[in-house]
Formats: sequence, C-alpha cells, structure tokens
Amino acid sequence: MEPIITLTTDFGLVDAYIAAMKGVILSINPRVKLVDICHSIPPQNIREAAFIFSTANTFFPIGTIHLVVVDPGVGTARRAIILKTPTAFFVAPDNGVLSYAIEPFLASRDDESTELHQVELRAEAEVFNITNPRFWHSPVSGTFHGRDIFGPVAAHLSLGVLPREFGKRLNTLTMLPLPHPVQDTDGSVIGHVIHIDSFGNLITDIKRAELAEQAITVEVGNRLISGLSRTYSEGDDLLVLMGSSGYLEVALKKGNAAHKLHARVGDTVRLRHLSHV
Amino acid sequence: MEPIITLTTDFGLVDAYIAAMKGVILSINPRVKLVDICHSIPPQNIREAAFIFSTANTFFPIGTIHLVVVDPGVGTARRAIILKTPTAFFVAPDNGVLSYAIEPFLASRDDESTELHQVELRAEAEVFNITNPRFWHSPVSGTFHGRDIFGPVAAHLSLGVLPREFGKRLNTLTMLPLPHPVQDTDGSVIGHVIHIDSFGNLITDIKRAELAEQAITVEVGNRLISGLSRTYSEGDDLLVLMGSSGYLEVALKKGNAAHKLHARVGDTVRLRHLSHV
Amino acid sequence: MEPIITLTTDFGLVDAYIAAMKGVILSINPRVKLVDICHSIPPQNIREAAFIFSTANTFFPIGTIHLVVVDPGVGTARRAIILKTPTAFFVAPDNGVLSYAIEPFLASRDDESTELHQVELRAEAEVFNITNPRFWHSPVSGTFHGRDIFGPVAAHLSLGVLPREFGKRLNTLTMLPLPHPVQDTDGSVIGHVIHIDSFGNLITDIKRAELAEQAITVEVGNRLISGLSRTYSEGDDLLVLMGSSGYLEVALKKGNAAHKLHARVGDTVRLRHLSHV
Repeated sequence: MEPIITLTTDFGLVDAYIAAMKGVILSINPRVKLVDICHSIPPQNIREAAFIFSTANTFFPIGTIHLVVVDPGVGTARRAIILKTPTAFFVAPDNGVLSYAIEPFLASRDDESTELHQVELRAEAEVFNITNPRFWHSPVSGTFHGRDIFGPVAAHLSLGVLPREFGKRLNTLTMLPLPHPVQDTDGSVIGHVIHIDSFGNLITDIKRAELAEQAITVEVGNRLISGLSRTYSEGDDLLVLMGSSGYLEVALKKGNAAHKLHARVGDTVRLRHLSHV
Repeated sequence: MEPIITLTTDFGLVDAYIAAMKGVILSINPRVKLVDICHSIPPQNIREAAFIFSTANTFFPIGTIHLVVVDPGVGTARRAIILKTPTAFFVAPDNGVLSYAIEPFLASRDDESTELHQVELRAEAEVFNITNPRFWHSPVSGTFHGRDIFGPVAAHLSLGVLPREFGKRLNTLTMLPLPHPVQDTDGSVIGHVIHIDSFGNLITDIKRAELAEQAITVEVGNRLISGLSRTYSEGDDLLVLMGSSGYLEVALKKGNAAHKLHARVGDTVRLRHLSHV
Repeated sequence: MEPIITLTTDFGLVDAYIAAMKGVILSINPRVKLVDICHSIPPQNIREAAFIFSTANTFFPIGTIHLVVVDPGVGTARRAIILKTPTAFFVAPDNGVLSYAIEPFLASRDDESTELHQVELRAEAEVFNITNPRFWHSPVSGTFHGRDIFGPVAAHLSLGVLPREFGKRLNTLTMLPLPHPVQDTDGSVIGHVIHIDSFGNLITDIKRAELAEQAITVEVGNRLISGLSRTYSEGDDLLVLMGSSGYLEVALKKGNAAHKLHARVGDTVRLRHLSHV
C-alpha cells in the first residue's frame, strides 16, 4: 500500500515551492501518494491554516502523514515537531498551526488564553522534537524548511522510521488562543466568524453541542435570521445551518453571504435559543 | 492497476473541501489514482462545469470514474446518479452537469428545449439512481454530498461494486438547454460564445461539422475576421480557428481576444461561408 | 516503481486543458505518477516558465520526466525536443523554456546574447528532435501540442522508449538571453529582479558565487539595506538574504517587499561589498 502524505502550506500556486518539496519527498520515498489539502493559505496566516487543515485531516485513512508548513518563523528558534496520534502523524513547525487538529487530544479545556501558550495532550498523543539532521536535506537553508526539514522528515516517516528517531519527546506543544463563543448575560451566545469559504459562507466558532434546539434566531451584521435550515436551498435569503464541518454557518441561497453582509473574519454573531427568551 | 477517479467541482482552491472528499475516497479505496479536472468552476455554475468537464473527460483511459460535483441543490430532492457508458463511469447530481458529456449518447437530437428537461440515452448508456445508503459516509450532512455520498459512491465503484447495487435504473436524466448555432435567413450561421478560456480565447458552439469550407468570415463584436487560421500565430490580429476541443474559436495572436473585444459568455458570433454569398 | 512525470504549463486553473493532457498520458501509461510543478505561468511567458521550472526540477528523483509546455508558437515551425541529461528527461518546445534548467550543461559561458540564440551542451546532455508521429495522439491539432505531442511523448518515454526513437539528435537548442548581473565601474554589482514570488520576495539574478562576503549593502528602489540576513525574521524592515533557490532575495519581515517597494520584474538592484568601498 502506498503511504499517504498530505500537504498544507501558504506557498500559493504561482511558484514551484510546493513542487520542490514534493520532489524532495519522492526522492526519499518514490512510493508516496501525495494529496494537496490547501496551498492558498494567506501568507504566514497560522490561524487560517490551522482551521482549514482541521476541516479535512480527519477524513484521511489511518496512518496518513500530514505535512503542515505555514512557518513565518522559519530558521529561528521555533521548534519543529512530529505529533503522533492513534490515527495519524503530523509534521509541522510548533507555532500553533495544529491548534484545531489537536483539540480532541487536549488534556484539559483550553479556552481562556489570549496568547500563544503551551498545552499538554492526553497520553495517546505523543509529540517529538525534530532535531536529528540525519533525516534532513543537506544543506539546510535558513528559509525553506518545508523542503529541507519537514518534507524529508515526512518522507522518512512514510518509510517506517519511528518518531523517536527524529528527536526527543516533548511534554507540551504550542497552541493559538482560539476564539470560542461566550455566553452573554441575557442567555444568548456570542460567536465569531472564524472563516469565510469560497462560496461566501460565514463559518462561526459555534459548534453543534452549543445548539440546544432548532428554534433559534441569529443576529449578524444588522440582520436577524430565524430558524435553522438543513440545506443551502431553503428560504430565499440569508439562512443559518449546521455546516458540514460541524460549525454554525450563515449562508445565502444562490448567493454569497459574505458579500451581502460585508462580513469579515472576526465579526460577531449572536445566537438566541427561543425557549430561553 | 490503480483505478482512476477524476474530480470536477466548484469548491475552489482556498478551502479544504476537495481534500475532505479525497480523504473519504482514499479511506474506502487507498489504491485510487485521483486526477483533478477543474475546481475553479464559478460557484454553482452548472453550465460552465458541464462544458469544462466535457473538454477533458474523453481523453481518460477506459474505465475511468468521473466525479462531477457542482450541486446547488445539495440536500434537496434532486436525484443523484451514476451514468455508465461503454468507456467510463460518471457520478454526479442529476442537475444537467453532464449535459455536454452525454451528447454522444442522446437517443435523439436535443436542440429545441429552452428549459431543464429529461432526455433518454441510447441503450449503451445506463443511468442509475443513487439511493442505497450502505455506500455513503455516515452521518450524511445536508450540505456536502460530495464528501458524504458522491465521493464514497465513486470509491466503491472503483472497488468493483456494480452500478445496480447503488440504486434502481432510471430511464432518463436531466439536460440543460444548451446553446446551439442557428441558421439565419441569409444563410449565415449565428453561434454563441459558450466559454472564455484563461488565454482569452472565445470558444463558440459552432462545431467542425457546421464548417463547410475554409473560405469564411466571422463577425464578432463590431469586428470582421476573414479566413480560417490553423494556429494561434497567424496574421497579427484577431483570428478564427477550429480549437482543440472541436469548437470554432476566436483568438488574438500573442494577446487576449476577450479583453480586446470586451466579449462575454453568451455573445453572438456570425459565420458566413463565402461560397454562399 | 511508478515513473514520475512533472508538468509545467501556462494553462491556468480555470480550464481543463491540464486534465486533457493528463488523461492522454494516463491512457498511454496508467502507471505514471503525475506531479504538478506550476500551471499559473502568465500566458505565453517563456522566461517566467523557464525560471519557475528551474527552482524545482533538480529536487526530483533520478529518471524523472519533466514536461514543460509554454508554447506560444504551437503549430508553427518551432521545433519540439527531448533533452536527456544524466539525471532526467525534459520534453518541451524548443523556444528557450529550458534556459535556466540547462545552465549546468552549457558547453560554454552564455551571458553576452541579447536575443534568442542556439547553444551547445556538454556531451553528457543529448537533445533530440521530436518528429516521429508514431508516438503522437491522432489527429494532431494545430493548437494543443501539449495534449497531442508533448504529453504522449512523455508517456512513451515513461514506458522506456528510447529518445532516439522519437527523432534525430540535434547539436544545439534554443536559449533565451538571460539577465546576468554586471560589474559597475565602482566595483558594485548591478543585478536584476527576475521573479517576484507569492510572498512578495524579490528574487534577483545575483547568485551565491557573486557574494564575496556578508558585509554588503543593497540598493533597491530608493532604499538602502545593510548586511546579509539568514532568515525572513531578522530586523524589522526590509532585509536581504541568500534565498533557498540560490539567488539573492530582498524580503520584508512579516510583509510583502514587492508591495512596499512597488517593485517589478526587471528592476535593478545594486550590491556593494563593503570591503571594496
């Protein structure tokens, strides 16, 4: 069976940086199956990368190796890590780019921090510090560790090299302060737009578990939307539904909700359960 | 031999929706070779998807499985189908997105309709209704059937599951009203721009068969172009040629014809055979 | 082992031209592993394609077949070639699109020409003229040789067909007049911006060998930058470093240098070694 390596970067599609990284990987293990997750992350936007990546990684086969290289600190003291969970490997700079992906493995709740911080994972998830140059491309540049370190490490993992061969185990890894919905004094929930997709759907940080019932209203911009739709085809204006990634979304039938609402990432969305009113 | 699944969607390149679909497919059949046809279809533009897809699908090996997911009606009553022809499988919503691809298999001419309609295919092409949830990702979302239904169905087809296992045979499938050139009273042919490619070439609905001779003139915008070129390098201005997909094209040597002519999809083009004048 | 074919084109991502080419290749050899290098080359920009391609091709495994199709002269008398080096095959129109890739194989220095010209390669690199239609897709269009000639030739090469089967050996191939840094009378080096990447980094034609020491200043736009950085994170403004492709780059910490400097390809950059002052 061909091992799978997925790739998520901010390298864009107008250069050949992705291809250089793929070439290095295939030179180490030509049997790898490479699958692009996304390369259009806005340059150096760790938060956006963390979210986008998390909407796809769980759908891949057990044993998949996920390479995530959004790395504004390349060449500096920021650590490089391998994360091993029961179902996958992750190879990335330790800058928070795995923040959404590691949520299921956090040893304790993590919704108070407002800055980059260290978190512990449950025992089933192990973190290793990439320090052994034996598995790197030589010479290592100061500016392209995707090609020179992360790619080669992922390729060697795909050959069956054990994570501990790449460096020592770590007790913590770096986490972004993720937005979380907050309960307002009147019982409503204040959520945030965390991503706007290419259809113009506003994806918020309100998860299925926070939705007690279907009788809701949502305030966004200066608009009020009533009820929970099941598809993008209901009503004939703005609508709210539980999106396919498990987050509450605001959408527009046959249109672009973000354009209509002049919405941006970070905007707030207020959710009211009608039985609470 | 690795089975091939091609992918055509309007998911764009800034999200990870394509990757989620690929992950689901590879989880069912890790031996699949995935080939992207196009993911930059304008959101929900079934007509554009139908055309773009048809310029590539016939070049793939026999037995290729084509997954085409431009699906504005996702989650509604629109049917999901498998089309089996002597050379390929197609998995798609039944919304007309296969309209150009099925033209060779139509049981009768189809150029009168001005609305979505049902068509019958010749016996060699069989259509099946996807209804058996045994082959779907569970749970099925109301908003992402590419990941939850179409992708898994394509993956199971690639494992050799027979089309009839997915649901009952259908007698008809849905067809878009496609533009067709019309004969004017003066003997000229009025065609339409059906696509503008990334080079700015205007691709029209006038096919090779409608071109009786090389001595032609073409009127487009307020310009008159004489003669049929064989390459994009002839003359030093606007030119007309039979494009590589079998349609009459208007192009500009070393330039972008669409910009020069301010042309748009739907514009008309008048073709005159000089021997008719 | 699956043979690897890489693809570099100006076909863009909104059409299905790349997919048609891939379909033809897979129809000839379904075991090929296809890897995209770049498809966002500006239309017909041979120089840009030549540079972008050269930043990735050397990282691929020995025996890789590189297909490079930026071909404004398609259908005209321009030659089609196979280049065989000790480590790879290249299939392309003979229009200069391999100019950067062949630099290591030039029989003599090549930095005086100001026009397209013919160059000889050292004996280890052999060039063949693609003329044998036996290996082409039939019929051959006048407008899409990527699909009808170059793709099929690359696919047959991947099956082990020898280069000489495709046509006669040539003594020379076509070279672009590449920009080269020049020494000014005051001892400074005048280089040129040859590419602006998606991060906004200015990549110049000044190579590592031209950099005698780290004590330098660089003039670009109306700005003066002192010293050579090792990473994109040093200082807090514009910086200069040796980029991962071996060229001197101007970058901006956490920003886009090209936007800040209103820089364009072709702009000059003046490098001073301080010990020369």
